[in-house]
Amino acid sequence: MHQPVVNELGLGRLEAFSDGVFAIAITLLVLELSVAEGAHADLLGAILDLWPAYLAYITSFLTIGVFWLQHSAVTNALRAADATLYRINLLVLLMASFLPFPTKVVGQFVEHRDAERVAVVFYGLALLALDLALTAFIRYAAEQRSLIRAAVSEETVTSALRRQPSYALYGGACVVGFLLPTLGVALYLAIALYLAIPGRTVRRLFRRAGS
Amino acid sequence: MHQPVVNELGLGRLEAFSDGVFAIAITLLVLELSVAEGAHADLLGAILDLWPAYLAYITSFLTIGVFWLQHSAVTNALRAADATLYRINLLVLLMASFLPFPTKVVGQFVEHRDAERVAVVFYGLALLALDLALTAFIRYAAEQRSLIRAAVSEETVTSALRRQPSYALYGGACVVGFLLPTLGVALYLAIALYLAIPGRTVRRLFRRAGS
Amino acid sequence: MHQPVVNELGLGRLEAFSDGVFAIAITLLVLELSVAEGAHADLLGAILDLWPAYLAYITSFLTIGVFWLQHSAVTNALRAADATLYRINLLVLLMASFLPFPTKVVGQFVEHRDAERVAVVFYGLALLALDLALTAFIRYAAEQRSLIRAAVSEETVTSALRRQPSYALYGGACVVGFLLPTLGVALYLAIALYLAIPGRTVRRLFRRAGS
Amino acid sequence: MHQPVVNELGLGRLEAFSDGVFAIAITLLVLELSVAEGAHADLLGAILDLWPAYLAYITSFLTIGVFWLQHSAVTNALRAADATLYRINLLVLLMASFLPFPTKVVGQFVEHRDAERVAVVFYGLALLALDLALTAFIRYAAEQRSLIRAAVSEETVTSALRRQPSYALYGGACVVGFLLPTLGVALYLAIALYLAIPGRTVRRLFRRAGS
Repeated sequence: MHQPVVNELGLGRLEAFSDGVFAIAITLLVLELSVAEGAHADLLGAILDLWPAYLAYITSFLTIGVFWLQHSAVTNALRAADATLYRINLLVLLMASFLPFPTKVVGQFVEHRDAERVAVVFYGLALLALDLALTAFIRYAAEQRSLIRAAVSEETVTSALRRQPSYALYGGACVVGFLLPTLGVALYLAIALYLAIPGRTVRRLFRRAGS
Repeated sequence: MHQPVVNELGLGRLEAFSDGVFAIAITLLVLELSVAEGAHADLLGAILDLWPAYLAYITSFLTIGVFWLQHSAVTNALRAADATLYRINLLVLLMASFLPFPTKVVGQFVEHRDAERVAVVFYGLALLALDLALTAFIRYAAEQRSLIRAAVSEETVTSALRRQPSYALYGGACVVGFLLPTLGVALYLAIALYLAIPGRTVRRLFRRAGS
Repeated sequence: MHQPVVNELGLGRLEAFSDGVFAIAITLLVLELSVAEGAHADLLGAILDLWPAYLAYITSFLTIGVFWLQHSAVTNALRAADATLYRINLLVLLMASFLPFPTKVVGQFVEHRDAERVAVVFYGLALLALDLALTAFIRYAAEQRSLIRAAVSEETVTSALRRQPSYALYGGACVVGFLLPTLGVALYLAIALYLAIPGRTVRRLFRRAGS
Repeated sequence: MHQPVVNELGLGRLEAFSDGVFAIAITLLVLELSVAEGAHADLLGAILDLWPAYLAYITSFLTIGVFWLQHSAVTNALRAADATLYRINLLVLLMASFLPFPTKVVGQFVEHRDAERVAVVFYGLALLALDLALTAFIRYAAEQRSLIRAAVSEETVTSALRRQPSYALYGGACVVGFLLPTLGVALYLAIALYLAIPGRTVRRLFRRAGS
């Protein structure tokens, strides 16, 4: 259908490897949840006391989930990849697979007066780094017209970029997290929930020209 | 074969990502099994003493396994997905990847007088939440006639819904678990075993009209 | 090409899910390897002292690896699956994903006079259970002529069964392990190494009739 | 298109299983990062003190990532596999999945005067073993002309071998690491970064003859 172009790579293994890393990063989050052996006197209390860890768990799960959705939508619009895209993708995966660590730190320290500010900003910076990497991924893909499937319009691609949360958004949330840690965490969750509302992000990406 | 419809998404990555999360959740369960370094005086006793953990392990493994079977059977009946289905799927995966935590809690506390009631109900609620999420997934898919493959009959889809354990079943098991914790755990295992009996769940889903 | 048969299921997700579970079980083994924080005075000694854990690691890695090879060869000979095969497959995966636990136990206790016998027999029984499950998987597949690809000969399938290590072999190794634990571990490794010698197991499975 | 050859195996599951193992090995690295519960007095200091672990994390992530890129490029040039290639691949995966252990050891001991030399050489030997296994994989594949896709030129394959870091490079880095541990770690990272620079490794592999 298309003429073979030098330096083109298949999308299959990029997608499979990325699905693997996203899936593992999202599932490892649960390993951080645990109740001490001695908690049997008040197990209900011990389970409920983990609320900051649940909050961080859900925020990271939703964030990785919706970023994976964006990633899927982008590769769905491509017909091939090149070596540079493979490497930018490694950067995206590095950031995604790092997220369980700051998630754990927030769950550990969100109730400690001294430490919660550091934990919340650290977590926010990790989200920002993931956001920047995925934005670079989308932006690079959008510029390689030869990699995009013929049926996908210019507008589709720019709309994908518009949907990806601006780094200003995560940067702002970091600043809020520095001033008011609890509000910062709420903002991270709000961004993830906003992106997770059905039928917005991905639908627009795939709205084809002329339809 | 089919006319391309706006807002349609491929099933490939939804299936690959889901397979990944189910596979990891089911395999992480084994990480909770361990014997203390000091157990060498009576290692056999120490290995046998873990029976509540084995029971929880097998129950969770079978439950995730048969729910994955249901999930496979449903996507097998589809020819495409939409953005909403991708998001409901994230909810299913959130619940599936959470299950190792209550599984661990049941294994830890099922022999503690005070705590076993809490642990068993907590576990049951997690199973119920996974069941509700998967039911929503099947129900939504069943309503989007345009996403279903032409060869699949109406009856096939409604039969899939009939096979998915009713939330009343898991809700009832939770109530039993509150009153009689040991019986509750036995019920969770019994539901999983019933679903795992070869040739029932999936066969019916794929029984095609007119054959 | 083939007439659609009622109750048939695709192989794609069975293979993807199995690849996931095998890959995770094989990779989780490394998590059990660790050196105590206080080992800095003699780190080389501490690393070398882990030799029983390395031995168990390599044995389990090779065993899971060659069993995965067998599993691949079998599904490669099939053109579809049915609900029963999906369920027997769950049993195979249950046993494969359980293996990291006895592997860890052998690594922990192989040098403890009292406990090594128990650890080695426990490990051998887990290998036997995995072997029995995979044998059942191959045997069932071999009996469903309608699931096998037309190009695959009768002889191919029976030869696959002949290649799968007999349960008598693992059963015998368990008995040896009970009497002479160190020899038992050596036998488990020898079986895995024999199966891993290039170009035996799988080649025969795919030798087609008339060639 | 091609005549079926005896003893040929599909590439699909080799790729899927390898993607799984690489993806898990690369993602497990994050589990080693953690901050002690008591660090709340100076959480920022505790997070920054982990710099050796971050360095090892990034080095291992990039190394596994670029080795996976090489692996993808090689299988992309093949049209089938044989039983021997499947087994050499198991060796590659054994080495890749082992890497999280020496990574953890370097992160633990890089600041301990006595132990850092041992840790750095141990890590370097693990990188060398992975490099040797992947080189054997590429070399074997390059010699089986019948497994290579017709469109791929001789030159493509030899260029892939030229790109794979020579074992002399990792061997030399091990020697440097023995003499000057800190410089050794810097060298491992430098090799990974050099390989990760966009558009070199993979592009050459796929430069087709006559273009």
